[in-house]
Formats: sequence, structure tokens, C-alpha cells
Amino acid sequence: MTTIPDHAHTADPVANAAPRGYAGHKDDQLSRLHKVEGQVRGITRMVGEDRYCIDILTQISAVTHALQEVALGLLDDHVRHCVHDAVRADEAEGDAKFDEVTLALRRTLRL
Amino acid sequence: MTTIPDHAHTADPVANAAPRGYAGHKDDQLSRLHKVEGQVRGITRMVGEDRYCIDILTQISAVTHALQEVALGLLDDHVRHCVHDAVRADEAEGDAKFDEVTLALRRTLRL
Amino acid sequence: MTTIPDHAHTADPVANAAPRGYAGHKDDQLSRLHKVEGQVRGITRMVGEDRYCIDILTQISAVTHALQEVALGLLDDHVRHCVHDAVRADEAEGDAKFDEVTLALRRTLRL
Amino acid sequence: MTTIPDHAHTADPVANAAPRGYAGHKDDQLSRLHKVEGQVRGITRMVGEDRYCIDILTQISAVTHALQEVALGLLDDHVRHCVHDAVRADEAEGDAKFDEVTLALRRTLRL
Repeated sequence: MTTIPDHAHTADPVANAAPRGYAGHKDDQLSRLHKVEGQVRGITRMVGEDRYCIDILTQISAVTHALQEVALGLLDDHVRHCVHDAVRADEAEGDAKFDEVTLALRRTLRL
Repeated sequence: MTTIPDHAHTADPVANAAPRGYAGHKDDQLSRLHKVEGQVRGITRMVGEDRYCIDILTQISAVTHALQEVALGLLDDHVRHCVHDAVRADEAEGDAKFDEVTLALRRTLRL
Repeated sequence: MTTIPDHAHTADPVANAAPRGYAGHKDDQLSRLHKVEGQVRGITRMVGEDRYCIDILTQISAVTHALQEVALGLLDDHVRHCVHDAVRADEAEGDAKFDEVTLALRRTLRL
Repeated sequence: MTTIPDHAHTADPVANAAPRGYAGHKDDQLSRLHKVEGQVRGITRMVGEDRYCIDILTQISAVTHALQEVALGLLDDHVRHCVHDAVRADEAEGDAKFDEVTLALRRTLRL
């Protein structure tokens, strides 16, 4: 689906060290995601142990909320960096990025 | 939060064999959740490898969708069994179950 | 939480003419919906006047939130009355009501 | 996807009188919103007439879906025009626009 492997082809070592927009927040995102992994394992365990449904639903709400926070953080970094750079570089490239963002939002909002 | 009085502790072997409403669909739910665990690890890896944001957002949408399917399945089984039994047993107990379900939906819908 | 005044038990013909579960909260729901109507007209006017997009988005969020509150209130009353009565009357009828509720939630959650 | 080039660059006074990004899609959005107004009035009427809850829930889902389509359309136009222009004009102004968009998405996603 993605065909944008390589905007990191510059020889600039700084750009290569932090190629994606979200790199600056990467540690935060990774620690959130590690927490989500633990929460999902917890949900699997609760189902395996026949725990009370309503308590499992509460955990699922917490996980989907955490994942949407991660998604919003990624999207925010994406528009500030990838979209921003595309817009400043070239109209057509900017338009393509806007199309991608709208499509991603459409999926996120289930539209 | 829940104070459900351990109805799995009964000596009734039938109750112990399938104590929660979702027990009948338990294998399906467990295999969905195992798949979600793998997907979340995949998302963590994608962030760690600086993969393209939009592709990560697509994966997050897939996971939140799968988790909401699990939640809807649990809720469906819950009302068909726990709520159903409470309603047939006792008005006050039924009302308490309805309160719980509405609160769980409120959390799920972020209201 | 619910204080529904036994609408199905009275001999009052007006109450009997309004058999739906939400009848007890009908005035609240109607006043919420009248407010929503005004908000939607406000959104139409804002678009017509080329108002700032972000402000319009804020209004749309408020309206969808209000509508989901109405939906949750209707659903809560529905399960406490229609589903409740069906469950106490007949297993097959109860099952049909549970199917309906799950399907309605599926649409609400866009699953 | 977008076919609204250069709306701010023309000397056409009508175009200049409609400076917002969504102006090009304004008629579509207005006709969607007029339809939503009618649907909300229909929902109010259904509640007033004690119509079946599940049918009302179906209508509410349709309206929230339509409103989110309007919101996504407004947001798409907003980033293609207001945010785009701000980014090309000035870094600080671009950053302020990105902040606004993220906050609007946060409200839309209920985060």
C-alpha cells in the first residue's frame, strides 16, 4: 500500500537519524504501545479466566482509547513533518499527502 | 469497580463448566485476541523501525476495529446470559444489570 | 438511575397509548432533539456564511455528542422495557430483541 | 480529489468574497446539511409519536454518519487551503494551524 520507502536517501546524517516525523516522540509512543501490549495480554487472560464481561469491556475501552491517542500523535507528527515538507516542496506532492491524510481519517472514523 | 459475588465458586458442575455468558464463544474471542496481540506487537515494531505513519494508522484502525468486535461479542453474550438471567430472577437485580450495561456503553461510546 | 413510573401497569389510557420504553423520558429527549435541530440549523448557517472551519467542526462534534446521548437514552429505556418484557414473556421473543439490540449497536459503532 | 486550485489568487470578487477553503464544496455541504436538518426533524417526530426505539436508533446513526462526512469534508478543505497557505507563508503560523487541527481531531475522536 505504501510506496514511499525512501525519503531518507539523503547523506545528511541528522536527517537519517530521525527520518520520520514522529521520531521525536518515538520513545513516548513506544512506551505507550508496550503498555497496550500488556493490556491486550491482560484482556486475553481475563477472557480465558471467564472474568466478568463488564470488566473486560472496561479494559477494551481503555486500550482503544490508548491506541487512538497513539494514532493522533502519529498523525500530528505526520502533518507537521511529512505533509509540511511536501507542501513546501511541491504542490502536487502536497496534494498527494492531503489525499492520504483524509483517507487515513476516513478509516479512523469508519466513514 | 465490579463486586460480582463469585458465582463461579458454586459446586454446581454445570455452572462451573460455562460460568460466563461468553463462554460459548470463548475460543473465537481468544483467537481474535491472540491475533490482536500480534497486530499490536507489529505496530510497536513499525514505530520502532520508523515505518511510514499512514501505514501504522491503517494497522491501528484494524486493531481498534477488531477490539470493538470482541467488545460487541462480549456484550451480546452478556445481555443474553447474565442480564437475561437477572431479569428472570429478580427485578432489582435486572435493573442493576441494565445500569451496568448502559455505563459500559457510555464508556465505549466515550459519552 | 431509572425512575420509569410503571407505564405498562396503569389503566390510564394515555399511558397505554404510549407503550414504548422511552415514554417516561420523552420530554427530556424531545427537548434535547429540539436543541439539536437548532444546532444543525446553526451549522448550516455557519457554512453558508463561510465561517471558520474549525469552529464549524466544534459545533458538529457537539451535535454528534448530543445525538449519541439521545441514542444511549433510547437504548437504555428500550432494554429496560421492550427487551425486559420480551425476556419475561418468552425465550424466543427475548432472543429476537437481543438480536435487534446487537445489530443497532453494530450500526452505532460502525462495525 | 481536490479540484479547487487557486481560489485566493483570482481577481474575481465572488471568489474573494468566499475565502474559506471549503467554499468550492459549499453547495454540496449545504445540501447535505439541509438533508440532515430534515432527518433530525424526522427523529424528533418519531420520538414524539412513540415510534419503535430501534428504528429511531437507525436514523440517529444515519445522521451522525452524515455529519461526520460533512466534518471530514470541511477538514479536508481546511488543510488543503488554510493550513496549506499558512505553511507556505510562515512557520509559526503553520504550527498554529497544525495545533488547531489536532485539537479539532481530538474533539472529533473524543480523546
